[in-house]
Amino acid sequence: MDAQAAAASPLSPAMQGAKRLLEQGIAFVKNAGFEVEQLERGLARCRMPFKGNANHIGTMYAGALFTLAEMPGGALFLSSFDAAKFFPVVKAVNLKFIKPAKGDVWVTARLSEEEIVRIEREATAQGKSNFTLTLELTDAAGTVLASSEGHYQLRRVA
Amino acid sequence: MDAQAAAASPLSPAMQGAKRLLEQGIAFVKNAGFEVEQLERGLARCRMPFKGNANHIGTMYAGALFTLAEMPGGALFLSSFDAAKFFPVVKAVNLKFIKPAKGDVWVTARLSEEEIVRIEREATAQGKSNFTLTLELTDAAGTVLASSEGHYQLRRVA
Repeated sequence: MDAQAAAASPLSPAMQGAKRLLEQGIAFVKNAGFEVEQLERGLARCRMPFKGNANHIGTMYAGALFTLAEMPGGALFLSSFDAAKFFPVVKAVNLKFIKPAKGDVWVTARLSEEEIVRIEREATAQGKSNFTLTLELTDAAGTVLASSEGHYQLRRVA
Repeated sequence: MDAQAAAASPLSPAMQGAKRLLEQGIAFVKNAGFEVEQLERGLARCRMPFKGNANHIGTMYAGALFTLAEMPGGALFLSSFDAAKFFPVVKAVNLKFIKPAKGDVWVTARLSEEEIVRIEREATAQGKSNFTLTLELTDAAGTVLASSEGHYQLRRVA
């Protein structure tokens, strides 16, 4: 993130720790250069750099787009739920490629306050609760390059 | 691949070149350690090593499973179609996670001779032809850990 972006959306100290975990906690994700630009309760904005992720025809490899589409589930988990009480599981991800990505790609994922409360209540009562993230992956101009539907489950720590 | 496996399924010289391209042509895929174990017309068997691809809870990260599920489209393209006349495009991948992967994961993808002929004929006549790969990702014992449906399109070089 550049200085301007950092100034525009400072992450709280707790979110700085979550950002570090998301970007560096999984070698595969770290190797791809995945970045969390914004992170707060119910909101995660992430970026996949083009550099290092091009395929043999000069567009972003599908696996890098998948990683960008999948990680917001973990990001929203860390920013919205109590990691001492719950953990997330990814059940399925459906990814549709719309236009080739020729530069960095962004995704913004949201969970409404009502949805956070529902998921937490269900997971507390029943041990698990499903939630879906329907996302759009965009270029710097906001053009949609790919869309995804991620099916996650919040589980109560036994 | 160990010596025994190599002896059991030697790759032809042309397939050796395709294997090298698939494993090393895309940095993202190379970083993951993706391997092509068998490659011939209508058949690709690939492996994703566990080493280097674990997540923070000691199972294979979803993005590595995605890469293993997606790459057979390119592998079957190189082994079954004329790369001077056609190129492949991935349109969508739907991936379902069934059990956590705690070791290496394999996938075997096949295109029947009839399907290869249909795709080639359509792409030659109409400029493009869709095909779907429905795959199972398994552990060493053959247990299904994930399933995928990859939607590809073979396109005629203009």
